[in-house]
Amino acid sequence: MTQPDTRRHEASAPKRHLRFAHVAIVGKYQAPGSGKVVETLAEFLHDEGCDVSLERDTALNTGLLQYPALDVPAMGRSIDLALVLGGDGTMLGIGRQLARYGVPLVGINQGRLGFITDIPLGAYQDNLRAILRGEFEEDPRSLLAASVWRDGRCVFEATALNDVVVNRAGVASMIELRVEVDGHFVANQRADGLIIATSTGSTAYALSAGGPLLHPSVGGWIMVPIAPHTLSNRPIVLPSHCEVAVEIVSGKDASANFDMQSLTSLLHGDRIVVRRSEHTLRLLHPLGWSYFDTLRKKLHWNEGA
Amino acid sequence: MTQPDTRRHEASAPKRHLRFAHVAIVGKYQAPGSGKVVETLAEFLHDEGCDVSLERDTALNTGLLQYPALDVPAMGRSIDLALVLGGDGTMLGIGRQLARYGVPLVGINQGRLGFITDIPLGAYQDNLRAILRGEFEEDPRSLLAASVWRDGRCVFEATALNDVVVNRAGVASMIELRVEVDGHFVANQRADGLIIATSTGSTAYALSAGGPLLHPSVGGWIMVPIAPHTLSNRPIVLPSHCEVAVEIVSGKDASANFDMQSLTSLLHGDRIVVRRSEHTLRLLHPLGWSYFDTLRKKLHWNEGA
Amino acid sequence: MTQPDTRRHEASAPKRHLRFAHVAIVGKYQAPGSGKVVETLAEFLHDEGCDVSLERDTALNTGLLQYPALDVPAMGRSIDLALVLGGDGTMLGIGRQLARYGVPLVGINQGRLGFITDIPLGAYQDNLRAILRGEFEEDPRSLLAASVWRDGRCVFEATALNDVVVNRAGVASMIELRVEVDGHFVANQRADGLIIATSTGSTAYALSAGGPLLHPSVGGWIMVPIAPHTLSNRPIVLPSHCEVAVEIVSGKDASANFDMQSLTSLLHGDRIVVRRSEHTLRLLHPLGWSYFDTLRKKLHWNEGA
Amino acid sequence: MTQPDTRRHEASAPKRHLRFAHVAIVGKYQAPGSGKVVETLAEFLHDEGCDVSLERDTALNTGLLQYPALDVPAMGRSIDLALVLGGDGTMLGIGRQLARYGVPLVGINQGRLGFITDIPLGAYQDNLRAILRGEFEEDPRSLLAASVWRDGRCVFEATALNDVVVNRAGVASMIELRVEVDGHFVANQRADGLIIATSTGSTAYALSAGGPLLHPSVGGWIMVPIAPHTLSNRPIVLPSHCEVAVEIVSGKDASANFDMQSLTSLLHGDRIVVRRSEHTLRLLHPLGWSYFDTLRKKLHWNEGA
Repeated sequence: MTQPDTRRHEASAPKRHLRFAHVAIVGKYQAPGSGKVVETLAEFLHDEGCDVSLERDTALNTGLLQYPALDVPAMGRSIDLALVLGGDGTMLGIGRQLARYGVPLVGINQGRLGFITDIPLGAYQDNLRAILRGEFEEDPRSLLAASVWRDGRCVFEATALNDVVVNRAGVASMIELRVEVDGHFVANQRADGLIIATSTGSTAYALSAGGPLLHPSVGGWIMVPIAPHTLSNRPIVLPSHCEVAVEIVSGKDASANFDMQSLTSLLHGDRIVVRRSEHTLRLLHPLGWSYFDTLRKKLHWNEGA
Repeated sequence: MTQPDTRRHEASAPKRHLRFAHVAIVGKYQAPGSGKVVETLAEFLHDEGCDVSLERDTALNTGLLQYPALDVPAMGRSIDLALVLGGDGTMLGIGRQLARYGVPLVGINQGRLGFITDIPLGAYQDNLRAILRGEFEEDPRSLLAASVWRDGRCVFEATALNDVVVNRAGVASMIELRVEVDGHFVANQRADGLIIATSTGSTAYALSAGGPLLHPSVGGWIMVPIAPHTLSNRPIVLPSHCEVAVEIVSGKDASANFDMQSLTSLLHGDRIVVRRSEHTLRLLHPLGWSYFDTLRKKLHWNEGA
Repeated sequence: MTQPDTRRHEASAPKRHLRFAHVAIVGKYQAPGSGKVVETLAEFLHDEGCDVSLERDTALNTGLLQYPALDVPAMGRSIDLALVLGGDGTMLGIGRQLARYGVPLVGINQGRLGFITDIPLGAYQDNLRAILRGEFEEDPRSLLAASVWRDGRCVFEATALNDVVVNRAGVASMIELRVEVDGHFVANQRADGLIIATSTGSTAYALSAGGPLLHPSVGGWIMVPIAPHTLSNRPIVLPSHCEVAVEIVSGKDASANFDMQSLTSLLHGDRIVVRRSEHTLRLLHPLGWSYFDTLRKKLHWNEGA
Repeated sequence: MTQPDTRRHEASAPKRHLRFAHVAIVGKYQAPGSGKVVETLAEFLHDEGCDVSLERDTALNTGLLQYPALDVPAMGRSIDLALVLGGDGTMLGIGRQLARYGVPLVGINQGRLGFITDIPLGAYQDNLRAILRGEFEEDPRSLLAASVWRDGRCVFEATALNDVVVNRAGVASMIELRVEVDGHFVANQRADGLIIATSTGSTAYALSAGGPLLHPSVGGWIMVPIAPHTLSNRPIVLPSHCEVAVEIVSGKDASANFDMQSLTSLLHGDRIVVRRSEHTLRLLHPLGWSYFDTLRKKLHWNEGA
């Protein structure tokens, strides 16, 4: 899956041996004491010959002012690689924003393996050196582009890396949702809600709600009803080139959630339309990385019981 | 399961052949045109020799003023049987209130078989005649007695025939709940919520959330997590003599629902305590009734596919 | 999805208006009394201007000897369309054999809607006329090509339209299977067995075992463990371009099933290798057909409960 | 739950301070090197003032001939307590046989916590001393009494501590089973099979097949279909005072399994009848033992992910 992005490479690389000349570090916000680790990583990258920047909030939180501090658009314009320190949540947050710029990301976790932040901090040196030299596996992840329509007008737009969730308010009973795929009526579903998840989201909320795992190379989404009234309303895998529309038929105070971002107080007749985003999250992993190794470890498949 | 309640019988029955001398009819509220059916049933009962009353709102809605109109406490004090016309929702609403008085109930549905309203309107005559003569199956249903505790004080009490549900608000992410049974720590659960359901509730929300069916003769509850983060957090059947305590550990705006009644804005540290109610709902069915017949028909078990 | 197959059309169509000049009818074997229906269909096709043949066993069973009787290879060489009368089982049986010849199939059911035999007998005339004119939706279905390897040699090969199932013998306890995808180790699974299913198979056994529905346009398979020992061994959707290998690690008398065909007495070390078949089943449906309409009807999604 | 069995106590205890005067040790068969541990335990018990015997096969396997070697009937007649060294499998094997004699059992595991063998070898001294003094929790477990009927005659009988399973042969397709409870028709089920499990069995095969956990204090069984054709055929909790009958309606080579014991080649019309056994397995645990602690640890409920 190693796909050399030669255009970018040629344009930005004064140092011959480097596949990624300008690297920005993104740290987990509000993680006390991460400043030291960020500093260590920055020095390592500098020693390897990279231009090093810090994501703006990371710079502010760590007080490391000797490196340029870039906001997301500036990162998108100028960096070749984002090095993310933290868990899957940190990666998802910055990845969703950087996807539109085509900037690849590498994730380093500080102890707990993530589904997508797979390099342990203790092994960063060899892994990063190899990746900087261009030795990596690229793991592209699709995103969902969602919009909310009311009275024929788009009132909200969002991009989701994990899932789009339409659900009832806490105190209300079931909502009823009319689901269409590419204009074809699927069903009216009465449930607590409905999840439309990417491969990345298939190991998150959708899994808790009974959905299958979805390999990133499958061009598809999973649509998972949450506690559906009809027992045969099973999860369904849809092609990613389709358009899913979910209309609020009944139920008070329904809301739509796009990863962590929420739109509350949906009205009857509101339509949430979900398509594949034109952007793709570009995750990089060390050579030899296997999606299945991560699944097996994270889901404790082979540990006896 | 026929259990003659001889004390009540002897006290109130001037008509020798009648097991239930005073019958009140309860209709579905807001059901237009049900007045005619209520009137027909009232005349039938009168012709059979019963004293007939109407539940107060049923009297108001139907305008049938020739029969005494009784509120629930008056019904509890004076009637021998409640005849409920409507679906399971109507039965649950009145049944929850009448349980404390020990008044048995019979359910008549107007077309769609209910889990507990099993006599079709078209067949009411023979079925009711037999029941009035004392030929019936009694199907006792346990209830949950729930209380909510804050800072050591009980701030809310409710009785539930279906279930007690603690769940997150619509826009929030998972809540974390600490569960104890009889003072023993069970687990901290991160989920959309948690259902504690009776046998009656086992065919309702708990079934949608993945719970098993629970036969009414089993002295137990089912505790079903809703979309739990940990995949091994499976539904568990608990003895009905136990006390379940659920404490809000984290999560904003959690709510507790007791059948349809809701208590919102629960705070961290709030404890929802669930025990078996001292009261029992007494459902009566025609002789030959089988719980399994109802399950099979309602769940479409033997219809091919 | 209407894809005119112009080469075939030009080569074989003396009758200008016909998209399919030579049609063979395939009836359900052992269905008594289907002879009359086959005859009616044959006459209808003849009247529409088609050359009509009968599949060989259909001719024998019905005694309709006035039409040429063709075996499968002859059908594959000479016909333009197969008209299948019967249920999904009949369609799967003949479809699996005809896939290699690229012959499209239309399914007519005698009363019970099938997942893939969707034209009711009572409505065959208008639907078939339109299809013969080239007005149809083409619904291509992927097949699995499976092989069994022992001591480095291929000992069995089969094609499956629904699924490849590796499972334990009836009286044995769990088997343990080592699963690899494209040479990557996935997990050792202890379970009753493992299903690898196509979209077509996703509504069959895989659904019973807890798998999701899989839209035919998704290029993927579902891999579903049957009663897995490890609760997090969830169904997983794999890309159809991958190769899945399942090795028998332990368990006596395991067997492999390819749709209905079985290979018993597998030994430890035997490997079942599954790839995408180079052939595709070409199902034709009337214009306006929707996969979701069939799902909704077959799975009784919108019937209340 | 400590229930002093005073009759037995008075009859057999010359040593005042001992609740259990005569203890037999049961070791895991075929466990190499367990002889040393058995010897250590025997000496410990002897030092505590107990009469010590060894289960016959344990004596043979370990070669410890200085203690009386007793077969199961002799153990049943003469011992006050069985000390089982091994995992849940060892405990289930001997427990099923000793249940009829009312002999209580204590389980010691050699490293891996079991659902019912909960005392770690490393902590045996304090725990056993307390239990010998009568300080323990008694955890009674119900057993299933199963019989197989053919042509009106009982052809097989067995007792099961985990489950009774009726299932199809490995290469066959689904079987169809007619299920009755107390003579009431429940449903004809088409599935891979059907599990009727005790509380003890609810953490074993039934859990893999989708069943709930069942607390030992609930007087019930769980009936769990394996990969049922009808999606609404959900697990059901039945009262333990009921009689379940399962009849083979169709399917070749069905078999019935009673824990590990199998009866193959069932015929159409064969009926498997399951009742509650008149015997109860008496498990003893250290004071403070909690069923939920074991569940939480074994099912990894609170370990993050």
